[in-house]
Amino acid sequence: MIIAIKSGVPKHEIDEFSARIEQMGVQVHPTEGANQTVLGLIGDTTGIDAEALRAHHLVEKVIRVQEPYKQVNRIFHPKDTCVVVRDSNGLDRSIGAGALGIIAGPCSVETREQIIGIAGEVKKAGAGFLRGGVFKPRTSPYSFQGLGSGGLEMLLEAKKETGLPVVTEILAVNQIEVFDQIDVIQVGARNMQNFILLKELGRCKKPILLKRGYACTITELLMAAEHIMLEGNDRIILCERGIRTFDNYTRNTLDLSAIPALKKHSHLPVIVDPSHATGLSWMVPSMAKAAIAAGADGLMLEVHNDPERALCDGEQSITPAAFASLMITLKKYAEIEGKVI
Amino acid sequence: MIIAIKSGVPKHEIDEFSARIEQMGVQVHPTEGANQTVLGLIGDTTGIDAEALRAHHLVEKVIRVQEPYKQVNRIFHPKDTCVVVRDSNGLDRSIGAGALGIIAGPCSVETREQIIGIAGEVKKAGAGFLRGGVFKPRTSPYSFQGLGSGGLEMLLEAKKETGLPVVTEILAVNQIEVFDQIDVIQVGARNMQNFILLKELGRCKKPILLKRGYACTITELLMAAEHIMLEGNDRIILCERGIRTFDNYTRNTLDLSAIPALKKHSHLPVIVDPSHATGLSWMVPSMAKAAIAAGADGLMLEVHNDPERALCDGEQSITPAAFASLMITLKKYAEIEGKVI
Amino acid sequence: MIIAIKSGVPKHEIDEFSARIEQMGVQVHPTEGANQTVLGLIGDTTGIDAEALRAHHLVEKVIRVQEPYKQVNRIFHPKDTCVVVRDSNGLDRSIGAGALGIIAGPCSVETREQIIGIAGEVKKAGAGFLRGGVFKPRTSPYSFQGLGSGGLEMLLEAKKETGLPVVTEILAVNQIEVFDQIDVIQVGARNMQNFILLKELGRCKKPILLKRGYACTITELLMAAEHIMLEGNDRIILCERGIRTFDNYTRNTLDLSAIPALKKHSHLPVIVDPSHATGLSWMVPSMAKAAIAAGADGLMLEVHNDPERALCDGEQSITPAAFASLMITLKKYAEIEGKVI
Amino acid sequence: MIIAIKSGVPKHEIDEFSARIEQMGVQVHPTEGANQTVLGLIGDTTGIDAEALRAHHLVEKVIRVQEPYKQVNRIFHPKDTCVVVRDSNGLDRSIGAGALGIIAGPCSVETREQIIGIAGEVKKAGAGFLRGGVFKPRTSPYSFQGLGSGGLEMLLEAKKETGLPVVTEILAVNQIEVFDQIDVIQVGARNMQNFILLKELGRCKKPILLKRGYACTITELLMAAEHIMLEGNDRIILCERGIRTFDNYTRNTLDLSAIPALKKHSHLPVIVDPSHATGLSWMVPSMAKAAIAAGADGLMLEVHNDPERALCDGEQSITPAAFASLMITLKKYAEIEGKVI
Repeated sequence: MIIAIKSGVPKHEIDEFSARIEQMGVQVHPTEGANQTVLGLIGDTTGIDAEALRAHHLVEKVIRVQEPYKQVNRIFHPKDTCVVVRDSNGLDRSIGAGALGIIAGPCSVETREQIIGIAGEVKKAGAGFLRGGVFKPRTSPYSFQGLGSGGLEMLLEAKKETGLPVVTEILAVNQIEVFDQIDVIQVGARNMQNFILLKELGRCKKPILLKRGYACTITELLMAAEHIMLEGNDRIILCERGIRTFDNYTRNTLDLSAIPALKKHSHLPVIVDPSHATGLSWMVPSMAKAAIAAGADGLMLEVHNDPERALCDGEQSITPAAFASLMITLKKYAEIEGKVI
Repeated sequence: MIIAIKSGVPKHEIDEFSARIEQMGVQVHPTEGANQTVLGLIGDTTGIDAEALRAHHLVEKVIRVQEPYKQVNRIFHPKDTCVVVRDSNGLDRSIGAGALGIIAGPCSVETREQIIGIAGEVKKAGAGFLRGGVFKPRTSPYSFQGLGSGGLEMLLEAKKETGLPVVTEILAVNQIEVFDQIDVIQVGARNMQNFILLKELGRCKKPILLKRGYACTITELLMAAEHIMLEGNDRIILCERGIRTFDNYTRNTLDLSAIPALKKHSHLPVIVDPSHATGLSWMVPSMAKAAIAAGADGLMLEVHNDPERALCDGEQSITPAAFASLMITLKKYAEIEGKVI
Repeated sequence: MIIAIKSGVPKHEIDEFSARIEQMGVQVHPTEGANQTVLGLIGDTTGIDAEALRAHHLVEKVIRVQEPYKQVNRIFHPKDTCVVVRDSNGLDRSIGAGALGIIAGPCSVETREQIIGIAGEVKKAGAGFLRGGVFKPRTSPYSFQGLGSGGLEMLLEAKKETGLPVVTEILAVNQIEVFDQIDVIQVGARNMQNFILLKELGRCKKPILLKRGYACTITELLMAAEHIMLEGNDRIILCERGIRTFDNYTRNTLDLSAIPALKKHSHLPVIVDPSHATGLSWMVPSMAKAAIAAGADGLMLEVHNDPERALCDGEQSITPAAFASLMITLKKYAEIEGKVI
Repeated sequence: MIIAIKSGVPKHEIDEFSARIEQMGVQVHPTEGANQTVLGLIGDTTGIDAEALRAHHLVEKVIRVQEPYKQVNRIFHPKDTCVVVRDSNGLDRSIGAGALGIIAGPCSVETREQIIGIAGEVKKAGAGFLRGGVFKPRTSPYSFQGLGSGGLEMLLEAKKETGLPVVTEILAVNQIEVFDQIDVIQVGARNMQNFILLKELGRCKKPILLKRGYACTITELLMAAEHIMLEGNDRIILCERGIRTFDNYTRNTLDLSAIPALKKHSHLPVIVDPSHATGLSWMVPSMAKAAIAAGADGLMLEVHNDPERALCDGEQSITPAAFASLMITLKKYAEIEGKVI
């Protein structure tokens, strides 16, 4: 961490300030310029509050050099993390470290037939995981809120029928219990900074699919993962799903540069959700291919047998046939990138 | 709601589609152009899912004309809502409908002496409410997380000493119980779309201070308030606190145009938090004055007796002396605007 | 400027790198930490290209401490600049240093009667300057592009009739000649980084009203002004007119925090254009008041006698009557702020 | 175009308003609802100013259904446009309609040796065009501004040596003359809405590489191309190069969803500049691959033989060796997509 002191501050005031900082467990090395002194903080600055320092009347600027996260940091864990889930047939389904994980399924579980039907089709086409929302966070209280625990049971039936591990979104701490049979717990974009929930999930033993908040930075996403990992759970899958920008052609702006950025700084696997990011089904195949080309460890895709009658987000769902056709191309891309689906 | 049908769709398909929409309880009026048909939906479209319609293969565009909220809508409730809190001395503290509510206090409660001292000073200067964080949502798990229930007790002591109603932030549903003595419950920007929490707060009888998420639109803020109000709680104070933009000179970009926008569409009072928005204490007075000039019903200001040693967000706190001096100017502005502090 | 060297770089490589930097005319002070060395550059770093340094394989981060502008910097020119224009009646019209300059008029000059009529009305209500577009930058080639030089003549007639100095927008270097009788030359948001134009305007002797690009930072606006001032023209008025954000309730998001920010770092006067920022006439009065409360040195307001028939941007124009009424309130605000209109 | 009339407006006022609109050459079809009338405008609405209509006191909302561009619109020109440039060896270099155009070279031309050397290397690796800046738009007046016409000559020498067509950026109308030997004229992001320049380029016979402004929408980019094409020049290459967002990990946020969006609405070829978008050389290969996977018709890549000593933007340049290696992978991707480099 580097602290630029305002110009014209007398040396003894800087010394006192430095002494106070050293009490926080770091060493302070000053560089005195003609007009300005710069303090270099040496040691572990993770616990030092940069904003508190900025409030000091002597301080002009505070710059963090060291990254503020440790557990998720690739520096301390150079090898790629691979999140593995054993499916009901005893098969290991992997995401990361060369394995592409494809999670597919409808936005919402609607009926027993719907979810089992889609599950069978996406499995046949090569998906490794089944997704399906049952507790839906909706902007409008008048919109369909998901089937709730009834939907959860249908999802588990689909799991039983196909053997596919299932992924669904959690909205609150008190739902953890009913997620007992769920294989991967998804934290949605709106809850990425629900720290109470993150901490609780850090104490459970299931893989967590952590979606980037639509207005959160790369660092904030990694800090959210740090909240989970610090509690003991290191099975985290990061998911880019678009950010809010001035451009509203697509629902959000898919930020594919997040893939190389996240993978440079962290060992955790990174997947992409082009369905929610774009909100446009006809754009999903090109963005799915681009994500794999950019180095993603997998995809989360909305697949619906009847998008036009979907109870939610039909606009962004592709059909099972389109999904199967996309998978064929994705496998070619995976091969070029030296990965396996 | 208006639906533009793709060009070249045969009439019988449009008719079938229209019939299906009419089953949702609205009337459909078609306008046939040379190349394109446009459907006008007449009736209450609040419950119609625009995104689901967009997924239909006949549809080119869907445009909502009617606002998607009802409870918070000024159309159905033309008079300004005034949120009133009776303080421990039996005095009514009001926000809205001509009454400016000034909420002041430290970012975090730190010690008994600190919170009681600041409470006394902001009361003397004319504040109507005391704020103080005890459960703090922090990006980093290594930062100070607030004093928790110990801090809550200190805050309540300050309430007892000064009589000021107190405002503090809630992070999860299971904290509602311990907020029993709190006068106004704050929902922070990161929880604005924590719908589970909003619904629960809609069932409690306390005023809710609802902060705009830093990437949420005006409509989304009003929809969040709708979630609360639909459950029966109409004592809601909306709070603008800055949005995320490309510009990072200030922490967030304070969007003062939200004030006239929110007041046009809703009857709820609107206050502004210039401290969190800018993150810079020297900017707080000018933005506080601008907020009142723009029509705000109040302010939320961070005041700390020793900003440089504040355990959190010191950079954005003003001193009690600066607060007192600002209040003198604010009263002049209020007078011009025909309001009272 | 501070350069953080990557961890693990051997000392002799850092020394060689430092020596190369010193050849650019600055001193280099290293701070050696346990893992990482930080170089502090002492001296005038304005001419050093931070991006070029970032490309070096030894470098992890480069941070600018000193501001990259000089001419417009308040540090080297602590006193407020006041831009003064003598009107045809020999009266001095001022913007800055305690004088609020109110520039009013239609988006576009449409007819002789229109511009002279509006000019008379805004003058009567207290405006100090008349605005009127004649060369219009329009997104669509099918939209009205302004009356061109014919409009310029009408604007000059209005100047002759009322004595008010006139402000209009320039689009290209080759128009400077025909702007001979224009009092203040406006550079629009889309041309804020048209450096060829800026340099040429730096060589003319007229005041320049420089609008902030809708996606430009505070620093970029000041650098654009630096381009002008470096060529010898120090009569520059900065203008905040909204930035692009995810929120599209208003056309752009008016960033009023830019006022205190610009005035802290620069001596140049700062005005605000709430008409273009919001695009909504009913919001103009509240944002105009907020701008003055936030410390602006003036306003640019669109006033049209018949907004509904305006050839461009009628939606954001207020009527002469609304303008006159607003001016009465603005004068009260000015008085509180110790300024004169 | 659809116009929603405010509720409660009497029929005769709506009729008068409709009659006035019909004078603009379109038909008006009203839909009368219980509370609100909606007008559908039938015919060519390209020339109708939506903002002017919004200003009318009867109007609540105006929605454009038809796209506001014609020349660049795929509806009126379903076949892909291919921009072809004959190089000095009589070979046709193509961009679009199945041909991937790779434009490579340094950010700035620095010396005769540098540009000829790089030109030879990128040609050998398979580039079809040579880029090199000579007039540089720089935020700071203290930064290197390019070699100007001297640099232009060096670039033309490199063209002569290698036969590669050359691409360089124009800053002002009066430079068109000296661009006589240049094969493709680039309009930079900052000049995308310099309409005077666009119109002039529409009258020249050279291909124009039009970069998306960093805060411009998809529609605005297409409207800028419309300005050019309307003047008679249909050899336009669109270029996505990143947009400004809250996230500043990369210099701009590369918006790859712009590729399918632009190709859906327009027949013009679309290329991507990952070097300027990210500003980080280590990210260029992954974003280049993603662009091709997403359907781009080509790439613009910064290649420098000595990035660390580059006079500008070295941080984002890759070496000729990295470029050659990237080209091998890109050819595999092109094959999957059924395209040729």
